[in-house]
Amino acid sequence: MDTEEFRRHGHALIDWLADYRETLAARPVQPPTRPGDVRAMLPAAPPEHAEPFEACIADLDTVVAPNLTHWQHPRFFGYFPANALLAGVLGDLVSTGLGTIGLSWQSGPALTEVEEVVTDWVRQMVGLSAGWVGVISDTASTSTLVALISARERTTGYALARGGLQAEPAPLVVYASAGSHSCVAKGALLAGIGREHVRTVPLDAGQGMVPAALDAMIEADLAAGLRPCAVAACVGGTATASLDPIGPAAEVARKHGLWLHVDAAMAGSAMILPECRWMWDGIEGADSIVINAHKWLGAPFDCTLYYVRDEQHLQRVMSTNPSFLQSAVDGQVRNLRDTGIPLGRRFRALKLWFLIREQGVAGLQARLRRDIENARALAAMVEATPGWTVEAPVHLQTVCIRHQPDGLAGDALDAYTRAWAEAVNRSGEAYLTPATLDGRWMVRVSVGAPETGRADVEAVWACIRRHAAATLEALSL
Amino acid sequence: MDTEEFRRHGHALIDWLADYRETLAARPVQPPTRPGDVRAMLPAAPPEHAEPFEACIADLDTVVAPNLTHWQHPRFFGYFPANALLAGVLGDLVSTGLGTIGLSWQSGPALTEVEEVVTDWVRQMVGLSAGWVGVISDTASTSTLVALISARERTTGYALARGGLQAEPAPLVVYASAGSHSCVAKGALLAGIGREHVRTVPLDAGQGMVPAALDAMIEADLAAGLRPCAVAACVGGTATASLDPIGPAAEVARKHGLWLHVDAAMAGSAMILPECRWMWDGIEGADSIVINAHKWLGAPFDCTLYYVRDEQHLQRVMSTNPSFLQSAVDGQVRNLRDTGIPLGRRFRALKLWFLIREQGVAGLQARLRRDIENARALAAMVEATPGWTVEAPVHLQTVCIRHQPDGLAGDALDAYTRAWAEAVNRSGEAYLTPATLDGRWMVRVSVGAPETGRADVEAVWACIRRHAAATLEALSL
Repeated sequence: MDTEEFRRHGHALIDWLADYRETLAARPVQPPTRPGDVRAMLPAAPPEHAEPFEACIADLDTVVAPNLTHWQHPRFFGYFPANALLAGVLGDLVSTGLGTIGLSWQSGPALTEVEEVVTDWVRQMVGLSAGWVGVISDTASTSTLVALISARERTTGYALARGGLQAEPAPLVVYASAGSHSCVAKGALLAGIGREHVRTVPLDAGQGMVPAALDAMIEADLAAGLRPCAVAACVGGTATASLDPIGPAAEVARKHGLWLHVDAAMAGSAMILPECRWMWDGIEGADSIVINAHKWLGAPFDCTLYYVRDEQHLQRVMSTNPSFLQSAVDGQVRNLRDTGIPLGRRFRALKLWFLIREQGVAGLQARLRRDIENARALAAMVEATPGWTVEAPVHLQTVCIRHQPDGLAGDALDAYTRAWAEAVNRSGEAYLTPATLDGRWMVRVSVGAPETGRADVEAVWACIRRHAAATLEALSL
Repeated sequence: MDTEEFRRHGHALIDWLADYRETLAARPVQPPTRPGDVRAMLPAAPPEHAEPFEACIADLDTVVAPNLTHWQHPRFFGYFPANALLAGVLGDLVSTGLGTIGLSWQSGPALTEVEEVVTDWVRQMVGLSAGWVGVISDTASTSTLVALISARERTTGYALARGGLQAEPAPLVVYASAGSHSCVAKGALLAGIGREHVRTVPLDAGQGMVPAALDAMIEADLAAGLRPCAVAACVGGTATASLDPIGPAAEVARKHGLWLHVDAAMAGSAMILPECRWMWDGIEGADSIVINAHKWLGAPFDCTLYYVRDEQHLQRVMSTNPSFLQSAVDGQVRNLRDTGIPLGRRFRALKLWFLIREQGVAGLQARLRRDIENARALAAMVEATPGWTVEAPVHLQTVCIRHQPDGLAGDALDAYTRAWAEAVNRSGEAYLTPATLDGRWMVRVSVGAPETGRADVEAVWACIRRHAAATLEALSL
């Protein structure tokens, strides 16, 4: 493909994407695809000779779009808002087209310094002090692993430079809030901690971690000769967007010299709203924070912001310095390779830079406030309906709901809950995520896709009641 | 930005990128940027209100492009070819614009199955047997970490499900070829192995790992009560594109029950050429392989292919199964979240799918053969010039050179070598990477950017001689 063809096909694909976004509302949110359907449409072997690029574009309409779950759909209420706002899409296009890679500062000066500036912009936007330094990574899972490895190395005094974790005298222990994401336990396991040394800190009735329980668990482990290492707390837990009390958790962590990692992957975006900042009161006492700009904030995936207080420690744990990466300016610059697991990085800062400028902080704030109001409106409608309940406080944009028909309980209630959620998803009218809370199934309605308005929230509520009623009727037959 | 604005700005940016690619040859490969220059051009605080998007586009010409090292430049000979071919750029644009995320099969059926099909296409293209299963990750560093953690868990019988690496009775040991990339040692350290338990296996004169030395090191560690765990060999080492003897290394690994990881990040692309496959003879005896489709092959960064023989083992080490990720079709499908560190993934397969179809296997082969011939031509020119030497066999596209003026040796020779390479880079005429080989500095000329032709190779050679002569003259004054 030469540049003239690139212009022609590029213009066609820009228009294809605009058409796609404009027609989203008319598409089923979840496709009717069955396992293997897509595979069966594709040749088993690669083409020996070039195909016309028009064939690739045509396949977007036949193979790709009809078989995708549409995360940008106005009635996508699944998982979390993973908003790919259009200004960010264009920033990412430029990143890919430039094809520049950040290894060292020298391999991409603008890539490095725009990342420094934009991560600092977000730091200011969420109200963190100047003591925090941010870098961009792919996902919260990766950054959480980096945080736990950083904690491991602080606790062991850099065992990696000696015999490694495996040569340490006593096992390390990680404490994860019961509200925390599965990536915390996964990160601890990958870091070599082991499931027997990953504790789950219980939540109170308000779904926040109990600091006294954390303290007691640490004391018990110390008494048993173990080495408490890190606490992982969350602001906006995955299941219910629950809030751990960060200040008290930081106090316990500080008392025992533990690393405090705060997962604000989803809810961190909301910290650009001053009225929400109480949710992470005490955040300055943390050692590391994850905020996914690729979630609610609107930067296209992947764009995780990882903030640390001690950048030198991060670099000491993550650095490599082979000869082919050394350059004349080392020492005067930040070499981004030394801040995470991958050596190279895309120019991810471009999409975030474009997004913030095109929206302005005020524009981003307005959209988040819209979503919070929509979530509250949905919660009010649910609570006003007999038999329906909101299962957790609606601090942000996640509404956890359950329908309790007369006479259903236990496993039968769980089966009913999953069945009506599945019926909604299968209908293509909206997309929800069932999840467990205190051992029982409920359904998360995660509000906040780019185009989701009040009408969509009203529509999903009508859709839920209709499918729940039909499911109940089918059960009674 | 609404869809109409997206069309307008999108068309403008497609044209901007086409113009950028067309004018690359006229730009300095390395910019004259000094540390802090870019930062000084940007506001220290984020904009409160929206800016016109035209301002973002204008900054590409003032802030971004003049301050980037241009990896797609026809005279970029640094690091490795990180080719962002235009069909792949467009595939990536679609991925970003769709904004769909692969967590489970259900969250993106087409994303999942196109990835399955395209990784299998590449498997066939490089001549691997049907026993290999591939998944896409971001970088070789990440996949190498996954490989070493997988090895760790196989050796320990899944210690992560018990007390972790830290509770194991004796330390594990990792053996890395001296030709291997820094990410192997980094991965071992991050996996908890520790520097004292990472061995470097020496190379023979041909720059390949010595299997007998590997065997002896393993025997010595066994005798000392340690637990040999993994061998990391490379096909196309970073410094000189060196080749470890994979078959013999596999034999030693098998004899002792070790995991064999093969880093073919750069050179794996060349395995689409049947005449190059001798370079990884015995590859079927490996446990895991990394091939970076985002290097020489031409898929825009990031797009690493990670192949394993035992997919179940990979999933057992990497799986998470919280309730909110469960779906009705689990068991019938591959959930890509269980194949690596991040939970979510972009639709990276799109860019690779578009690239392979637009080029055809024959088209990809022709470009790689062009680059190999260009590298050989450069090597011949170097060897034909008195005082200049090629420092390592030119199997592929990396030519390691050194100039040995009369009377210069040791540190003085090193200083001269780095100085002339730096002079070339500073001139903006071409970009090279100095590196060490056997403890002394040489310069890598890594051939293979998308538009690099024979004339560019002749130009870099003239440029090198000119700057070397000027550097030598300055030293003598």
